[in-house]
Amino acid sequence: MTEFALETLSTNRAHGGTQGVYRHASTATHTPMTFSVFVPEGEGPFPVLWYLSGLTCTHANVTDKGEYRAACAEAGIIFIAPDTSPRGEGVADDDAYDFGQGAGFYVDATQAPFAAHYQMRTYIEDELPSLIAQNFPADMTRQGITGHSMGGHGALTIGLRNPDRFKSVSAFAPICHPSQVPWGEKALGGYLGDDRQAWRDYDAVALIEDMTDDRRARVPSFLVDQGADDNFLAKQLAPEALATACADAGIDLRLRMQDGYDHSYYFISTFMADHIRWHAAKFHAV
Amino acid sequence: MTEFALETLSTNRAHGGTQGVYRHASTATHTPMTFSVFVPEGEGPFPVLWYLSGLTCTHANVTDKGEYRAACAEAGIIFIAPDTSPRGEGVADDDAYDFGQGAGFYVDATQAPFAAHYQMRTYIEDELPSLIAQNFPADMTRQGITGHSMGGHGALTIGLRNPDRFKSVSAFAPICHPSQVPWGEKALGGYLGDDRQAWRDYDAVALIEDMTDDRRARVPSFLVDQGADDNFLAKQLAPEALATACADAGIDLRLRMQDGYDHSYYFISTFMADHIRWHAAKFHAV
Repeated sequence: MTEFALETLSTNRAHGGTQGVYRHASTATHTPMTFSVFVPEGEGPFPVLWYLSGLTCTHANVTDKGEYRAACAEAGIIFIAPDTSPRGEGVADDDAYDFGQGAGFYVDATQAPFAAHYQMRTYIEDELPSLIAQNFPADMTRQGITGHSMGGHGALTIGLRNPDRFKSVSAFAPICHPSQVPWGEKALGGYLGDDRQAWRDYDAVALIEDMTDDRRARVPSFLVDQGADDNFLAKQLAPEALATACADAGIDLRLRMQDGYDHSYYFISTFMADHIRWHAAKFHAV
Repeated sequence: MTEFALETLSTNRAHGGTQGVYRHASTATHTPMTFSVFVPEGEGPFPVLWYLSGLTCTHANVTDKGEYRAACAEAGIIFIAPDTSPRGEGVADDDAYDFGQGAGFYVDATQAPFAAHYQMRTYIEDELPSLIAQNFPADMTRQGITGHSMGGHGALTIGLRNPDRFKSVSAFAPICHPSQVPWGEKALGGYLGDDRQAWRDYDAVALIEDMTDDRRARVPSFLVDQGADDNFLAKQLAPEALATACADAGIDLRLRMQDGYDHSYYFISTFMADHIRWHAAKFHAV
């Protein structure tokens, strides 16, 4: 099996394109990794929208419930949904829903026993993009990234660390300031250790605070939707800290509080098409 | 607990409206029955679209994967997804996926041990409409019905038996002629016994053949989508028999064979919005 050998688990025609689910042996996590890709009808190459999922999810949650295919078909966008952590018998885990398998937090872990497999930053930033570029009709010069909750944290931090790669960054109810909230303190402490300086590379607010002016100027626009009735809003998400950091740094953030919406896929699917159209406008604006 | 007491299991804001899941003690099935209802934003009353699910499904499959909420919100339509059978410890069952719990076939069973609870025709035709009318802002003078596979069979047969109740009938990959295919022969034989004359009330093609001219003239238009790559097409679905029966009877059937599509929710969700717009046009045409 070569580095990028790709196993097709399923393909189904949907909205004129193809919804596929694939598996490969990851060199970053040293495990099999599964992800889904929707490719619209036509020859491409198509711009790429990454979607990073939240706690407990696999690729399947958004693939089933995300309601993204109609809008991606219309805009001509490839939609990629990776898993949220390495998985399997030999992979360290935890009984909690918010740490271990299903909760990789998009970090490269440095602490035993997690460091052996929990290399999700390298997987999402380096390995999976190479595999996508080699196997799908993707225009890697036009990429956007989005995600939900823990995956919104992933989208914001990956977007901030790679301002030249992404034309657009959006998120649904992201964990904006993980180093200051219980979910993030547990995960960053567990994967990275007690030195909070090491956490700053995985905290959207801290990344903005630490940026050089030159780099800040290259950060793309952000779109964030947040349900006003989200049970996790007060304790875990901290969008106001993101708003303050963006305002101080001159980063263009459109933060929309959505009355009556919670943290579920009912919320995500309601605003998904709007996010896709927003990314599409950025892809086609240049 | 009165006859129509309704227990709310969950409500979530979605696409401006409310997606709810409810449970009640059914007098038809003598079991608790669960169903989902999407109500769009506004005061109503709203026309009602019934969606009957296929083998093995509960209300949850289409609620998660059906991609109906955006189109129902736009058209101002209530969407109702019942369960496919009675369920529970005291309810007769079968190890097969295509008989017993999850496979009620929308019939009133006459054979032991099924007759005690499998009264899905009465449940869907009589009991649940009364409950909906009493508890939701529904305009019961404007109803349409649709469904998938076994639920497409349900939609066609219920529509044919109640031509004055429904303004529109559609289906995704329906079992069009159950008395002549293995799924149907097993289910109708098991629930209704060996007398095939009794099956004709639950077979769309037979219902059309047996109709009086007066009744035929009142049957609403039919829209049917069928995936051309559906694994069950050749052996179980028989859309050609429905097409012949409708042509002979002068019933307006629009049957669309969809290249490359299979029997899954990827197929259903692709054409769901189109069906909803078609029903909406019928609701607003009078």
